[in-house]
Amino acid sequence: MLAARGGRQALRRWQALRCCASLPRARLRVREALGAPEPAGEVKVQGWVRSVRSQKGVLFLHINDGSSLENLQVVADPSLENRDLTFGSAVEVQGKLVKSPHRMQNVELKAETIRVVGPCDTLSFPLKRKGRHPLDYVRQFPHLRCRNTTLGSLLRIRSEATAAIHSFFQDNGYVHIHTPIITSNDCEGAGELFQIETSNEARESAEKTHFFNVPAFLTVSGQLHLEVMAGAFTQVFTFGPTFRAENSQSRRHLAEFYMVEAELSFTESLQDVMQVMEDLFKTATNTVLSKCPHDVELFHKYIAPAQKTKDRLEKMLKNKFVTISYGEAMEILKQASPSFTFKPEWGCDLQTEHEKYLVKHCGEVPVFVFNYPYDLKPFYMRDNEDGAQHTVAAVDLLVPGIGELCGGSLREERLPFLESRLQRLGLKDAYQWYLDLRKFGSVPHGGFGMGFERYLQCILGVDNIKDVIPFPRFSHSCLL
Amino acid sequence: MLAARGGRQALRRWQALRCCASLPRARLRVREALGAPEPAGEVKVQGWVRSVRSQKGVLFLHINDGSSLENLQVVADPSLENRDLTFGSAVEVQGKLVKSPHRMQNVELKAETIRVVGPCDTLSFPLKRKGRHPLDYVRQFPHLRCRNTTLGSLLRIRSEATAAIHSFFQDNGYVHIHTPIITSNDCEGAGELFQIETSNEARESAEKTHFFNVPAFLTVSGQLHLEVMAGAFTQVFTFGPTFRAENSQSRRHLAEFYMVEAELSFTESLQDVMQVMEDLFKTATNTVLSKCPHDVELFHKYIAPAQKTKDRLEKMLKNKFVTISYGEAMEILKQASPSFTFKPEWGCDLQTEHEKYLVKHCGEVPVFVFNYPYDLKPFYMRDNEDGAQHTVAAVDLLVPGIGELCGGSLREERLPFLESRLQRLGLKDAYQWYLDLRKFGSVPHGGFGMGFERYLQCILGVDNIKDVIPFPRFSHSCLL
Repeated sequence: MLAARGGRQALRRWQALRCCASLPRARLRVREALGAPEPAGEVKVQGWVRSVRSQKGVLFLHINDGSSLENLQVVADPSLENRDLTFGSAVEVQGKLVKSPHRMQNVELKAETIRVVGPCDTLSFPLKRKGRHPLDYVRQFPHLRCRNTTLGSLLRIRSEATAAIHSFFQDNGYVHIHTPIITSNDCEGAGELFQIETSNEARESAEKTHFFNVPAFLTVSGQLHLEVMAGAFTQVFTFGPTFRAENSQSRRHLAEFYMVEAELSFTESLQDVMQVMEDLFKTATNTVLSKCPHDVELFHKYIAPAQKTKDRLEKMLKNKFVTISYGEAMEILKQASPSFTFKPEWGCDLQTEHEKYLVKHCGEVPVFVFNYPYDLKPFYMRDNEDGAQHTVAAVDLLVPGIGELCGGSLREERLPFLESRLQRLGLKDAYQWYLDLRKFGSVPHGGFGMGFERYLQCILGVDNIKDVIPFPRFSHSCLL
Repeated sequence: MLAARGGRQALRRWQALRCCASLPRARLRVREALGAPEPAGEVKVQGWVRSVRSQKGVLFLHINDGSSLENLQVVADPSLENRDLTFGSAVEVQGKLVKSPHRMQNVELKAETIRVVGPCDTLSFPLKRKGRHPLDYVRQFPHLRCRNTTLGSLLRIRSEATAAIHSFFQDNGYVHIHTPIITSNDCEGAGELFQIETSNEARESAEKTHFFNVPAFLTVSGQLHLEVMAGAFTQVFTFGPTFRAENSQSRRHLAEFYMVEAELSFTESLQDVMQVMEDLFKTATNTVLSKCPHDVELFHKYIAPAQKTKDRLEKMLKNKFVTISYGEAMEILKQASPSFTFKPEWGCDLQTEHEKYLVKHCGEVPVFVFNYPYDLKPFYMRDNEDGAQHTVAAVDLLVPGIGELCGGSLREERLPFLESRLQRLGLKDAYQWYLDLRKFGSVPHGGFGMGFERYLQCILGVDNIKDVIPFPRFSHSCLL
């Protein structure tokens, strides 16, 4: 029973609690109570009421404290009912954990006392007991939506996925680097930057002196800073917030989102970088599936389109990801029967419609597209020398339902190549420090970034990116 | 041997590598090579050269790849020497791992081939082989300082400490929440905020419309957002960057720094919050000490003032932290023989000189100071009702050498108390959402924040906070 509910950890804690004979009543979390290995005596459980009903002279409560999707059933004498005991109220229940006569649960809590710690003004509380609120409804209440069942599951999954990603890198010997949030350079050269001033400066006008002496921005990627570290460590990673000032209302974009980025030194092959991306995806996902199966099931059952997401995910985890070159991708697109809004042509970037088609064409599995045209990609990508500035060693990972999930490349480690490219772009002075990295013990290296929210959308089948982050920030919206 | 070098993980990886009989040469990291359980055949090791010397017809190299403080000794025939093989160059060495005849190491690598992957322009390379560069010297080269031995150790320790903190909370059932970086409110009301605009807006002048429709700032604390989550989960934590636009050149302040914050629901006692702080400090520190003993030793031996830091740390880990009330602290300060620049008086905040004195007075151990004057503290702290707005349930943790490491409190969960306080401050409209949290199933709760860089300073004995973060940001400086 315990194992099924996810917990050697819960068992350990349970045993520890059982040992504390001096405690008059062990305080248990709902998850621990549900996983109790035996009907187990006097306990105290605290949480929020998810339902109240009277039936045949018995009062039934369901309470939840966020430790699991499942509620704990409380049975009580109707005399313990009071008018503050409503949906949404916070309660403390003391009683005995006993074997439940019902099929649906292992144990239930036979209440001796029920104390309403904090009542809930049910009339003005926007969440209701009955039915499942749509995600776009609860999104209107950023301070309350975590009390919704679906968002509760999402936040537990997000927490487990975060831990799984950290573990993946640590288990493989990567050093975790906190790359800076405030930076004086613009990695992608995309220009959609947030600039930072002290609030006084912002209120004044032109001719100001900057707090940092130079204009400062919110980071769009930790890559260049990870490359600094790749000059001393063979494997490094970062996992933090990144920013885009894109005026977009898309289902796939946020102004503030999380990115997992890794950099590998002494790496001469794009294949090695792709292998890490695939391993990361599969290892993290398998961990999440084993740590919170019920929470994931809720998404696959009620949120994602039918059975599709679950089956697709199993297929993704079982098979090797498909690998095609950009050139091959263009050939496939040119021979496609549907006509695209953007005509596929060598030298053009892949549009969302193209990405979708490619993934479908390959059988609804993740697809690596590699070796992109030189002129499409940023200055730091490595020239393949397969013609005069023809292609660079770049790779994107496209996944079903989302499109681009990861982007990576080998970086140009050769000083003369990098120097002349920066020179042509007029960036040589600004990137003198970056050139320095190639003067002192330069090594072939490469890396990638994975959008964490898109990853969650992908494995859970969530349509809108705003529903997989606790506090979404996007144009015209910064609530709380 | 292996265990001493920190690695069941290394052993597993080693065994896995040994199984790959198909691999012509196992590629090993330096840490793995050093931990090899037996003289172990053909391998390939890559890294950066830390020293080159010829002696009695043998060429000795020391190479390091960031996986450990220790270098791997390479012995080679002098014919393998070439002029690019210098301090700082990147090399790939193939050869046999054999038992070393020297006392200082277990194994050494007998080179068959040495390939210089990336030479180092030693003349202009600011790091030199001989001697230990002072921390303020290497700080001038933010893109190269990670190649310095001391900073290498720091970054490994920082990575392990980060992992240890995550594990502490996960093992105790906390849900990890990514609280937002961009926010429309100012938790502390301190006013030293960075404001955000799109770079276009920043270039234009007044009368602008904001990207988010409202003025937006970089977060100074995730607390209020964690409190949102504490309405659905009993234990939550966050660990991310926070910001202060303080124009300070102090050894203890940065414009961008990391904070660990936790929030506990159904918590009625400040003692419970203090217990979590103490457990976190001790558990994380013990983990760091066991995971990277050599790296920590380097700091205690060469960076921290003499034996003091090490002894102090052992004492901190062994004894229960001291607990005194703010009132008691004031009495101690008033009776102190030295005269302070700031006269201690009930109602005044503790100054650095006071914090130092209190820690010393209590025997150079961590000291919790609790129950501060009501008027000194922010609106969200819980009134102790020990007089008319006399004290609030706030606590600061002071530690030797640093001063304030953590701050925490019980939060005011009672709607009428909070409402009238916000009303008096003219903040009631702005914090309507925060009041809502008390209308719907409010629970007694409390939490704390710990400055991660100060934590590292404390356990390592590092004087300047700029030396414990990979890319320090402070007034007048935002390099890279």
